[in-house]
Amino acid sequence: MTSVTGSTDDSLTELLAAYISVWNERDPHARQTLGTEVFTPDAYYVDPNASAQGRPAIDAYVAGWQEQFPGCVFVLGEVSGHHEVARFGWSFGPPGGPPAGTGGDVVVIERGRLSRIYGFFD
Amino acid sequence: MTSVTGSTDDSLTELLAAYISVWNERDPHARQTLGTEVFTPDAYYVDPNASAQGRPAIDAYVAGWQEQFPGCVFVLGEVSGHHEVARFGWSFGPPGGPPAGTGGDVVVIERGRLSRIYGFFD
Repeated sequence: MTSVTGSTDDSLTELLAAYISVWNERDPHARQTLGTEVFTPDAYYVDPNASAQGRPAIDAYVAGWQEQFPGCVFVLGEVSGHHEVARFGWSFGPPGGPPAGTGGDVVVIERGRLSRIYGFFD
Repeated sequence: MTSVTGSTDDSLTELLAAYISVWNERDPHARQTLGTEVFTPDAYYVDPNASAQGRPAIDAYVAGWQEQFPGCVFVLGEVSGHHEVARFGWSFGPPGGPPAGTGGDVVVIERGRLSRIYGFFD
């Protein structure tokens, strides 16, 4: 298994940090711009609550989540990657406070961007 | 999130139990027969050590693992599923003994069979 300590994995950690930043970016234009760097055009996202195909649908889902949880942010947890896939933990809640929720996602990466995001809640 | 306690999820748990049985079935014919029930014909498998496309390649990889670890079996852990995806934990080691290893996989399901298996080691 590839660890995230080596320089090879810096780009993976950066990509996943950018993905988390999408969830935390509440300026629509900045969020959509970041989304073009993070997601392939036809990226597919699914979690227990919803699925979304393509950047605009994913962005709309993220925006809806942000409206629902105005005081919460996501924090990236442990990352591990191999081949073209990665899994990582995350938590969300008020900044600096105890997590209101945690989960783990598995993603598929195509040429440096996320093409599939399979989200799970703990 | 869909729990695995309801009747709706019995088929998911059965499918993942059958997937684990593939790893534990050391009779090649029985294992391949089970594989046709568990995997779509072009199923894709990837874990930190290898990737395999299609039932024959997956079966060859499982057979190689079995040769490498003659005294070990896999045990299915916690399962959760939603939409067409599921994640589950697993452990492996000598039957009845402490686990020699654990991991977690995310799978994509198409018409009751696994089309993608993304494996990770803890």
